[in-house]
Amino acid sequence: MKKFINDPKNFVPDMLKGLALANPDTLRYVPEYNLIHRADAPNADKVTIIQGSGSGHEPAHVMTVGRGMLDAACPGDVFAAPPVDYVYETTKLLASPKGVLLLVNNYTGDRMAFEMAQEMARADGIRVETLFIDDDVAVKDSLYTIGRRGVAGNFFVMKAVGAAAEAGADLDEIIRIGEKVNSVTRTMGVALTACTPPSKGSPLFDLGPDEIEIGVGIHGEPGRRRGNLVSADEIVDDILGAVITDLPFTSGDRVALMVNGLGGTPISELYLLYGLAHEKLVSAGITIGRNYVGEYCTSLDMAGASITLVKLDEEIESLLAAPAEIAIRVF
Amino acid sequence: MKKFINDPKNFVPDMLKGLALANPDTLRYVPEYNLIHRADAPNADKVTIIQGSGSGHEPAHVMTVGRGMLDAACPGDVFAAPPVDYVYETTKLLASPKGVLLLVNNYTGDRMAFEMAQEMARADGIRVETLFIDDDVAVKDSLYTIGRRGVAGNFFVMKAVGAAAEAGADLDEIIRIGEKVNSVTRTMGVALTACTPPSKGSPLFDLGPDEIEIGVGIHGEPGRRRGNLVSADEIVDDILGAVITDLPFTSGDRVALMVNGLGGTPISELYLLYGLAHEKLVSAGITIGRNYVGEYCTSLDMAGASITLVKLDEEIESLLAAPAEIAIRVF
Repeated sequence: MKKFINDPKNFVPDMLKGLALANPDTLRYVPEYNLIHRADAPNADKVTIIQGSGSGHEPAHVMTVGRGMLDAACPGDVFAAPPVDYVYETTKLLASPKGVLLLVNNYTGDRMAFEMAQEMARADGIRVETLFIDDDVAVKDSLYTIGRRGVAGNFFVMKAVGAAAEAGADLDEIIRIGEKVNSVTRTMGVALTACTPPSKGSPLFDLGPDEIEIGVGIHGEPGRRRGNLVSADEIVDDILGAVITDLPFTSGDRVALMVNGLGGTPISELYLLYGLAHEKLVSAGITIGRNYVGEYCTSLDMAGASITLVKLDEEIESLLAAPAEIAIRVF
Repeated sequence: MKKFINDPKNFVPDMLKGLALANPDTLRYVPEYNLIHRADAPNADKVTIIQGSGSGHEPAHVMTVGRGMLDAACPGDVFAAPPVDYVYETTKLLASPKGVLLLVNNYTGDRMAFEMAQEMARADGIRVETLFIDDDVAVKDSLYTIGRRGVAGNFFVMKAVGAAAEAGADLDEIIRIGEKVNSVTRTMGVALTACTPPSKGSPLFDLGPDEIEIGVGIHGEPGRRRGNLVSADEIVDDILGAVITDLPFTSGDRVALMVNGLGGTPISELYLLYGLAHEKLVSAGITIGRNYVGEYCTSLDMAGASITLVKLDEEIESLLAAPAEIAIRVF
């Protein structure tokens, strides 16, 4: 394993500490609960939006805390759901009188932790609801999941509910928006290499020198099939095709197109993929209203990418276009 | 080689095409010269800022074209200087009556191409000057360089001269600013793995499973020494220490701190490194005025990172804080 780490057991807190030090004006770090929250949260005038998940998907979700996005993120260890008490304490600390929305990617461990924490917070009189995200078209059930997995399309749900919360929408309205965005968001990924969790120290699965995993999950879970390494063009045909036919997206649709890197793939290759996906969509009569190229939801150091489409309408497009500020920035 | 590519020979144009398709309102692509330029350039009211270099360092420099940064970038093939005529034609196409500044990282091939193109453009009556960037403290001379190499610190020169040009500064003033920023910017990098150029198809150099290259160049050139993989703490001590003692930076200084990923290292590890570097600087009595964590100047898929410090004064800090917009964005 070749990583920049000190003690593998402290990988997550060491990262969170760096994140907080880099954002002293906007973020707060509570080490007891792996909690990163906005410096100005909770805010009694807005619904609190919290996401939890395993770590190893950065920037999701600790680096997408900020104005117009999440109020807080409470990650677990790498690829492990946050403990129930982390979610419960986070919910209590960040509760707003307007309510709390917990965003959860659909994995069994995460569902259990969040549903239990929700019950505990409700017993304390906190108004809290949970929204599950399941945008991955690759498989129906999976290694860690009953039903579809939540992957990079999560970004669009966060962005839309974050914008609505910032604008003062109430909890019911925010849930309506989140469910709507999730219902029109579809993703599929492909891995060129496995990833290496710090505590394991070796690759999580074996992938031959000419093999790729089509439909891979963001924890390296198996996808639809192993295939041979083929051209970028054929890969985009394969995964974009699966995304398009799933909703389905059809001629005349207007979409957001995301090409997401899984951690080890350089941005040059992501833009190359973007160009191919863009042209294929235009050929299919689909208009690209907004585009996203970069790393949004990764799998540690995995070389690979995913493609997400969101069917846009006026409401969704305006929420995606609303201003927002997070830790990940250039300037 | 596991990459998202079609024909390795077309890697650069395929990437540039994707970049242009993703930014139809702000960027223009001229395939004949690998040229990416602002849709609103040239602008007669501002000095034109152009950077060229080999490809493979993305986002540098084709993805840092935009308002407040570069007017244009004309890259060569991967790790190869742009041909003289690309630089010459780019200079002619983008020339402004206020003049043109060519930014060049200090590599022998790039120097030759830009100096020759400058002569040709001058013969056409274009006012053009060239500024060389050489922020890498690792080695005095190198595989492709007489004198120090230009690496990730280049970002700060681009940002400062871009802001000054946007504000209407004349060419002499912009050169003064660029030289000043370069003179107070220092960088050193470390590689955990080699990188694989698409046309070669195999790693550019050999690095054992427990070896790292300290002071590596952004084309995989040897640095100061091979070492064993050690903790992130020891690595930061080593490379940050080399940077600090070079200028030198001393107690009471105010700096910009950049932790730059070399392409294959996830952002979680970059934030971990940031936290360590931040604390070491604070311990040394050095104040961090601005920070930058992410990928600014990469080496294809190399796992590794570099640390850059810039000594700030009021003028530099205000130029770095000026608004700017480039292709790399989250929302």
